[in-house]
Amino acid sequence: MGIFQRFARLPLKSTYIWSLCPQYSTDLTTVDSALIVRSSQLIQHRCVHSRVMGASPGNTGAAPPRLPFSRVTQEDLAFFRALLPGRTITDPDLLKSSNVDWLKTVEGNSEVLLRPKTTEEVSQILRHCNERNLAVCPQGGNTGLVGGSVPVFDEIILSTSLMSQVITFDNISGILTCQAGCVLENLSNYLEERGFIMPLDLGAKGSCHIGGNVSTNAGGLRLLRYGSLRGTVLGLEVVLADGRILNCLATLRKDNTGYDLKQLFIGSEGTLGVITAVSILCPHKPKAVNVAFLGCSSFQQLLETFQRCRGMLGEILSAFEFLDASCMSLLEKHLKLTNPITESPFYIVIETAGSNATHDEEKLHKFLEEVMTSSLVTDGTVATEATKIKALWSLRERVTEALTHEGYTYKYDISLPVEKIYDLVQDMRGHLGDMAKNVVGYGHVGDGNLHLNITSPSKDPALLAAIEPYVYEWTSEWKGSISAEHGLGLKKRNYIYYSKPSEAVALMGINAAPCESM
Amino acid sequence: MGIFQRFARLPLKSTYIWSLCPQYSTDLTTVDSALIVRSSQLIQHRCVHSRVMGASPGNTGAAPPRLPFSRVTQEDLAFFRALLPGRTITDPDLLKSSNVDWLKTVEGNSEVLLRPKTTEEVSQILRHCNERNLAVCPQGGNTGLVGGSVPVFDEIILSTSLMSQVITFDNISGILTCQAGCVLENLSNYLEERGFIMPLDLGAKGSCHIGGNVSTNAGGLRLLRYGSLRGTVLGLEVVLADGRILNCLATLRKDNTGYDLKQLFIGSEGTLGVITAVSILCPHKPKAVNVAFLGCSSFQQLLETFQRCRGMLGEILSAFEFLDASCMSLLEKHLKLTNPITESPFYIVIETAGSNATHDEEKLHKFLEEVMTSSLVTDGTVATEATKIKALWSLRERVTEALTHEGYTYKYDISLPVEKIYDLVQDMRGHLGDMAKNVVGYGHVGDGNLHLNITSPSKDPALLAAIEPYVYEWTSEWKGSISAEHGLGLKKRNYIYYSKPSEAVALMGINAAPCESM
Repeated sequence: MGIFQRFARLPLKSTYIWSLCPQYSTDLTTVDSALIVRSSQLIQHRCVHSRVMGASPGNTGAAPPRLPFSRVTQEDLAFFRALLPGRTITDPDLLKSSNVDWLKTVEGNSEVLLRPKTTEEVSQILRHCNERNLAVCPQGGNTGLVGGSVPVFDEIILSTSLMSQVITFDNISGILTCQAGCVLENLSNYLEERGFIMPLDLGAKGSCHIGGNVSTNAGGLRLLRYGSLRGTVLGLEVVLADGRILNCLATLRKDNTGYDLKQLFIGSEGTLGVITAVSILCPHKPKAVNVAFLGCSSFQQLLETFQRCRGMLGEILSAFEFLDASCMSLLEKHLKLTNPITESPFYIVIETAGSNATHDEEKLHKFLEEVMTSSLVTDGTVATEATKIKALWSLRERVTEALTHEGYTYKYDISLPVEKIYDLVQDMRGHLGDMAKNVVGYGHVGDGNLHLNITSPSKDPALLAAIEPYVYEWTSEWKGSISAEHGLGLKKRNYIYYSKPSEAVALMGINAAPCESM
Repeated sequence: MGIFQRFARLPLKSTYIWSLCPQYSTDLTTVDSALIVRSSQLIQHRCVHSRVMGASPGNTGAAPPRLPFSRVTQEDLAFFRALLPGRTITDPDLLKSSNVDWLKTVEGNSEVLLRPKTTEEVSQILRHCNERNLAVCPQGGNTGLVGGSVPVFDEIILSTSLMSQVITFDNISGILTCQAGCVLENLSNYLEERGFIMPLDLGAKGSCHIGGNVSTNAGGLRLLRYGSLRGTVLGLEVVLADGRILNCLATLRKDNTGYDLKQLFIGSEGTLGVITAVSILCPHKPKAVNVAFLGCSSFQQLLETFQRCRGMLGEILSAFEFLDASCMSLLEKHLKLTNPITESPFYIVIETAGSNATHDEEKLHKFLEEVMTSSLVTDGTVATEATKIKALWSLRERVTEALTHEGYTYKYDISLPVEKIYDLVQDMRGHLGDMAKNVVGYGHVGDGNLHLNITSPSKDPALLAAIEPYVYEWTSEWKGSISAEHGLGLKKRNYIYYSKPSEAVALMGINAAPCESM
């Protein structure tokens, strides 16, 4: 039976969108059909949210109603226990941390957590759930920021945490093949011992799983240098909703034979299948790394510094990140970190990575001399030693953590033309006035990616109503993206139309008209 | 009506696969459905080819039977002439070059060539063809090597040659947006004047169109440094088979809002829609470029040179290409090019591109000293001046052209683990013995991509039968790709199963079982 026929029978209302919905997939023959199913829900969500449910911006993150999935029975549990002895978790205390996201803003009520070790086990779990019409939420390191990694109702949590084996590593080509549950930092350490690095790095590396990174299409701190996962991921193994195993675990840099199916799973947030293994191309470990931490007195000067930097550091530039003075205050206040330079409105983290220490230092010093002489940069410090490099990086990487101490944080992950990114922060400060405790900006200048964070002592519907849809309208006006690297998850699912034309959303799923409120 | 229902009605036999088949798309609501349609034909082709049609390897490139498309009528021509006055070509002499591929191995019999200038015109053409059940073959620069850019029967040729406008270029971000028919070399020249370069470069640059490059997912000479089009293409505008315009012409480096639809069109060879415009991220023009042309006495030494090169040139390495002695002979014989160094079994072209000429030269000289001292390289020359750089590059770029003078060329574009790539050439020489006039190898060492070419004074079914499926079986055994960067086109459409598991092919389309002969 075709998927369009199934649509006619199924309630198209809504469900939580970023968990696997096996009941739709009983006889799906194609990934593309799964794509249709999932994204139609996406659209429905948006419309249901603002029309059917009469939602106001105040309940943006609110879950849509539960769809008629089955409930987990004793027979289901017996099946899971036989399949995964000792790895079928039902103790509510043990389930707690998997039911809530890292930011503690989205909480589900799952009663069972499954911890498969093999692809075959994942396949059997999904086949069973598919036949039994049970909803499944795939979960990696649960470090997502949009409520996409936790259940919303009673979905079964399928954790990749025990799928943490490196399968192969080829130290000629630098191609790593590993299970989806490998923690990013563990992979980094494994590779560094062999003279390579992961092509991505992010603040959550100590917990996040590579499978989750790929499902989210995480960007992180090295995208400027090594490009996106769409280029570096060479192969994926995926289990589809009905349990079929799709082995696209190629280890070739080039392969133009038919459609590149793995692209469908990169960034689709677990909605089209569960990624069980990843092949990824890893760069050689650079022989020399330098980090400079600089202060600028205006964002305009920061941008000019960026332009000079690209010209003068060229191929050795591996990161150009920024944080504003408000971020620095929070780092000092909550994490007791020390600002290594004089106070400035803006701070930059520049990393170089190259094959010749002398050349790199020469380039960096020439660049620093120029930006200091021309007063683009007011103060700065440079690190070449690992501990000091780590300390400087933590000023950028731990901003998210510092923010969690401020109460409730409204988080926005926006792509904009680079010259506009800080205008949004300043505009938002003016717009919100005293309503917000903090409006801070940090992020990846090199990628045109701003992390805008607005804090409040606790959840504040009035504040949220002032932020949304204002922030999305602003972003849309400048043709930006309302989710640069975090994905849509539960929290941003209603806002896809601000970044994608309705024809595109229709092609992702169904021919839904944009909501009237657009 | 859903696509699966349509399948039930349609003859599933076969058609030429890489031309747009509008009649399938009358009421398609999704790209994914188009994907299903097209790739199902792909599978059918393969099976039909070896079972139903009783094909032998001798007629690999033979066209499958024509499907029941309509024929172009006087009314159709009147419609086209009204829409495209002076740009509706029916003169057989003028049509000739568009009916045959560059290699002159595939020839169609189209009676009308349309040359739209705008996306809206493309949309109107496709809408008309869709309604009238007329087959369309989109054509760029017609430089493809697998028979994917020419009609097989009487398809209408839709040429992008008059869609050659740059739409915008942002010299801060380096993002270029242009029409699909821009010639790659023209874009390169445009960008160089502004301090940027295209992230891809290939031998056919003087004729190929950027839309065709993207449709083919061309790799080329710079992939090693700047990555694949999957990372550098930021946005696409596409006209679907029913005339709908899909505007995904984003100019953002990061955008994780829903599925990345543009990936479906990259590398799908025009089967899912006609690309009408492209946004692409262009790197800064390097301040210093050096090219070294080196000789090696064995492929093992060439590989070792590659390893040293990656370590010592690191971030400035922008190409590592090779050709064998047979290629050099053909360059000398047919194109009167001069070998600038002493005769060697293997030749390497190494390019560096960096931001500091002194540093780059120092790195390069240190590397050259090492590989000469350790006898990995037997002779070499270095160019820093543009004319000499061009001359050295032409030794690599013009091999394809030299081969065309040899008679008939059987061309294979294979991805393999890099240490295996030349084994295939040597094995093939032994396997074919005197049957082949030449068995030559050249290609992209850095990407593990071999161009294996076998020549014969004229078309030779016995030779072909000795090459295929042998070459595909060999490639499959080493988990390689039977088409690294050229695509499947008409010529390779039957061999997808050698590089993709049947589950993957099934997900591209239908649940076809692999042929018995596999």
